[in-house]
Amino acid sequence: MIPGGGRRFFGKGRMGVSGGAMRFSYTLVKLVELLRPKRVVGNTEVEITEVGSLADARSGCVSFLGNMKYRNEVQTTNASVVLLPPSYENEPKDGQCFLFFDNPSLAIGLLCRDIERKCALRPALGIHGTAVVDDTASIGSGVSVGPNVVICPGATISDGVVIMAGCYIGKDAKIGEGSILRPSVVVMDFCEIGKRVTLSPGVVIGADGFGYETVDGVHEKIPQLGNVIIGDDVEIGANATVDRARFSCTKIGRGTKIDNLVQIGHNVTIGDGCIIIAQTGISGSTTIGNHVVIGGQVGIAGHLHIPDGVMIAGKSSVASYKSGRVLRGNPSMPINEMNRIYVLMRQLPELFARVSSLEKGK
Amino acid sequence: MIPGGGRRFFGKGRMGVSGGAMRFSYTLVKLVELLRPKRVVGNTEVEITEVGSLADARSGCVSFLGNMKYRNEVQTTNASVVLLPPSYENEPKDGQCFLFFDNPSLAIGLLCRDIERKCALRPALGIHGTAVVDDTASIGSGVSVGPNVVICPGATISDGVVIMAGCYIGKDAKIGEGSILRPSVVVMDFCEIGKRVTLSPGVVIGADGFGYETVDGVHEKIPQLGNVIIGDDVEIGANATVDRARFSCTKIGRGTKIDNLVQIGHNVTIGDGCIIIAQTGISGSTTIGNHVVIGGQVGIAGHLHIPDGVMIAGKSSVASYKSGRVLRGNPSMPINEMNRIYVLMRQLPELFARVSSLEKGK
Amino acid sequence: MIPGGGRRFFGKGRMGVSGGAMRFSYTLVKLVELLRPKRVVGNTEVEITEVGSLADARSGCVSFLGNMKYRNEVQTTNASVVLLPPSYENEPKDGQCFLFFDNPSLAIGLLCRDIERKCALRPALGIHGTAVVDDTASIGSGVSVGPNVVICPGATISDGVVIMAGCYIGKDAKIGEGSILRPSVVVMDFCEIGKRVTLSPGVVIGADGFGYETVDGVHEKIPQLGNVIIGDDVEIGANATVDRARFSCTKIGRGTKIDNLVQIGHNVTIGDGCIIIAQTGISGSTTIGNHVVIGGQVGIAGHLHIPDGVMIAGKSSVASYKSGRVLRGNPSMPINEMNRIYVLMRQLPELFARVSSLEKGK
Repeated sequence: MIPGGGRRFFGKGRMGVSGGAMRFSYTLVKLVELLRPKRVVGNTEVEITEVGSLADARSGCVSFLGNMKYRNEVQTTNASVVLLPPSYENEPKDGQCFLFFDNPSLAIGLLCRDIERKCALRPALGIHGTAVVDDTASIGSGVSVGPNVVICPGATISDGVVIMAGCYIGKDAKIGEGSILRPSVVVMDFCEIGKRVTLSPGVVIGADGFGYETVDGVHEKIPQLGNVIIGDDVEIGANATVDRARFSCTKIGRGTKIDNLVQIGHNVTIGDGCIIIAQTGISGSTTIGNHVVIGGQVGIAGHLHIPDGVMIAGKSSVASYKSGRVLRGNPSMPINEMNRIYVLMRQLPELFARVSSLEKGK
Repeated sequence: MIPGGGRRFFGKGRMGVSGGAMRFSYTLVKLVELLRPKRVVGNTEVEITEVGSLADARSGCVSFLGNMKYRNEVQTTNASVVLLPPSYENEPKDGQCFLFFDNPSLAIGLLCRDIERKCALRPALGIHGTAVVDDTASIGSGVSVGPNVVICPGATISDGVVIMAGCYIGKDAKIGEGSILRPSVVVMDFCEIGKRVTLSPGVVIGADGFGYETVDGVHEKIPQLGNVIIGDDVEIGANATVDRARFSCTKIGRGTKIDNLVQIGHNVTIGDGCIIIAQTGISGSTTIGNHVVIGGQVGIAGHLHIPDGVMIAGKSSVASYKSGRVLRGNPSMPINEMNRIYVLMRQLPELFARVSSLEKGK
Repeated sequence: MIPGGGRRFFGKGRMGVSGGAMRFSYTLVKLVELLRPKRVVGNTEVEITEVGSLADARSGCVSFLGNMKYRNEVQTTNASVVLLPPSYENEPKDGQCFLFFDNPSLAIGLLCRDIERKCALRPALGIHGTAVVDDTASIGSGVSVGPNVVICPGATISDGVVIMAGCYIGKDAKIGEGSILRPSVVVMDFCEIGKRVTLSPGVVIGADGFGYETVDGVHEKIPQLGNVIIGDDVEIGANATVDRARFSCTKIGRGTKIDNLVQIGHNVTIGDGCIIIAQTGISGSTTIGNHVVIGGQVGIAGHLHIPDGVMIAGKSSVASYKSGRVLRGNPSMPINEMNRIYVLMRQLPELFARVSSLEKGK
């Protein structure tokens, strides 16, 4: 959130080490087998049991140089193994091992995925005895349905789907291949979830849109007959909510990633590959283009169109959109203009004094 | 949210069509029987399978003219059936049918409710075998209690209540006639829900208010002995939270509608017929009058009183209330004043230049 | 939230009476036995069935004078029993009883805790028949595991823990002695909860941090291998979310209290004794010192450090931290400076007029 929001998902800062949580161990031989480095230099007898940033790493840790800006940290790191780009030139310390890759970030990612696969809970295949699955639901192969899950009539659960404990799948809802629903997710009637989608705990998909017709001061509910359609490879964060449409659908495009506690109103359309940081809210019937990046706690009014590739700084309030590739402020405007105004606001006391002085000089 | 928030619930904009979700079909004969139009003009052989806005409608769609502003869209719409006010004068296209009503919006509402009734999941009456209901709870007639619901000692579930899967009803809590709790709702001990209330998935009613007495830097919890009382015909959106009072009650008045992810603090009193848009927070002990409209992401400080009929634009921050019927800004003030200031803020660079120029001219 | 947020947890304002909710009754004899006042003056035959503020109390109510500022309310209160400091000098009304204490606030707190103990739901000891508990989980003594709870392999539930209905405890997660998890809490794999922690309904601990590496426009998920570690005596409000770390841990210090719908990003470290009001969001890798107080709806950017004892007014946006003990605004600055600027902003119309007038005078 805030302009700094952008750093959140590319951050190369202090990340600590994986000490307390997952337990694993790799000999260097296994590591080389898995990651296939271009070159190995130094001690090949090490064993690693942690992953950490260069600054935080200790003995037994594997670390990596993702950005040449931090090259100096390689010389002082206590990591036992460091993944490096070919252009790095210094030698490892005694007992240390260097592995060289065209893209050390990708290599560390590969390792992390391997660790995750080994350490994470492996949901049991099949349908848990406490799950309540309607006879008319269609359940694919290789599916895991956890304890206390409820699957309503007509729902379709595709191959390889994991539905963890306590989830609710509404009538005629569809969950695409390989998607994972973490505990306590609610997918209401008629909603459609794509392939390889991840829904974090507490997500609510397809609650009624907030629509009323006010007649003589009484707010009459407008039925919300539409649904929600979520594209492939979307991820949605914990306790976020996406409302069903009045008619038609609320739509989230392929590969879009949505953080915790975000609110998506009814009839909103979000394009492909967007990033939406925590606690942002998008009001009804607004359309968001492709590859739009929205910081945390942003509010976007209803019935707007935000074009492809626009970036919106955290805490901004977008009441209308005219132009600008990067927006900031309340009300939002192009970020350079807004930054200039923020600077001048801090100079207001001085400006008032200057005007007073001019008045006295008259 | 944002000033545009108001358009959110009266929006006449693009709403799409009800394509993917609910499946239904009405012959014109059935439609006329249900809606009883004043006049029928055009093709009476059509069958409709979708509802949509004039702009988005395609063949097989029923649409409506809710606002004469959009009358031109009637001439270009592809809807097979259009619901119109008596004052509309043009003729239907070939194959199209026009139905005339004093209030076409009400007519479409009636139709939508009929569709909803036909298509929506009908919760089974009775108590599901997996529900855990205490012997001392009182369960009315015509009640539906879904899978994995937990109902604690002394709770009262009135006639016609629907409690969907995974809900939790605390000790001595009361749910009024005809209310519906969607999946995963939590109603904590002693809380009272009125009649015909809808609680969306993940709503939490009656968590402890956030109250501490800080003694020597240690925050000692202040017991929260009160409850939450929710009036008739209230609706609360997904994952919203309403805290229990310290003593007495947190109160939400009859007919008030609250959107997703809203936070209502302890000892807050909200009047009747209010509208509160998504992600707004109201701090402890504040009282809100009747028919107050609050945009999205608004923050209201504690111990304030907001009078009847006040409207607050989205993203506003209300730290005190003195006067004004429509408020905006951070800190909030009457909207006209705030809008004027927003305009002048954009002119600050120019103002600084003008002052510099005056200074040079001295 | 908002600067007034501070009053929220020290508020001495109108709190109502405990009328509708919990039912209890104390004779004066019992009250004296429980609270051990220094002195008793007036009617010793009274019986109390409610707790309330001086202003709201009615007959049958016990109230208290927590702050001498409100001493006048003692003379007009209808409370049957009033807890008072030794310095209070007036006499009780007919039928009223005064009890004197060095610290009447502590005394009322003691009474409220006694009421709570008597009235609150007492979770049954043992493991409910519908709970699903893995054989490899370790369950302490005096534990209560409610209906439909799921406890995964390797989890540790310490002595005296209460896990209410529908909670999910992930693989190898640890819950410390005497902690209470209210209904529908999710604690994901490997997370560690301290002693005497309270997690409100719908809290999600340890969902994946929001981390992606964007390669050719595709957001590749960065595995989140760390966990969340929550210190002793922490309380977290309804539907709040705390994400697991990339490596290492997201950490919340001892005695910190977090309100509803707060979002804590991955790799955040929060110190001891902090207060964080509702709907605030803290971005990834930021560290917060000890005894920091953060108002409602605040946004804090990633990779910042907020020192010990800093206070941040509600709705502020902290994009960087340089100095200041109390911050406010968007972007935030020291509160005195910000308040000055808010005042001047309201005077902008006048300033523009003054400059125009100077220009005409040239």
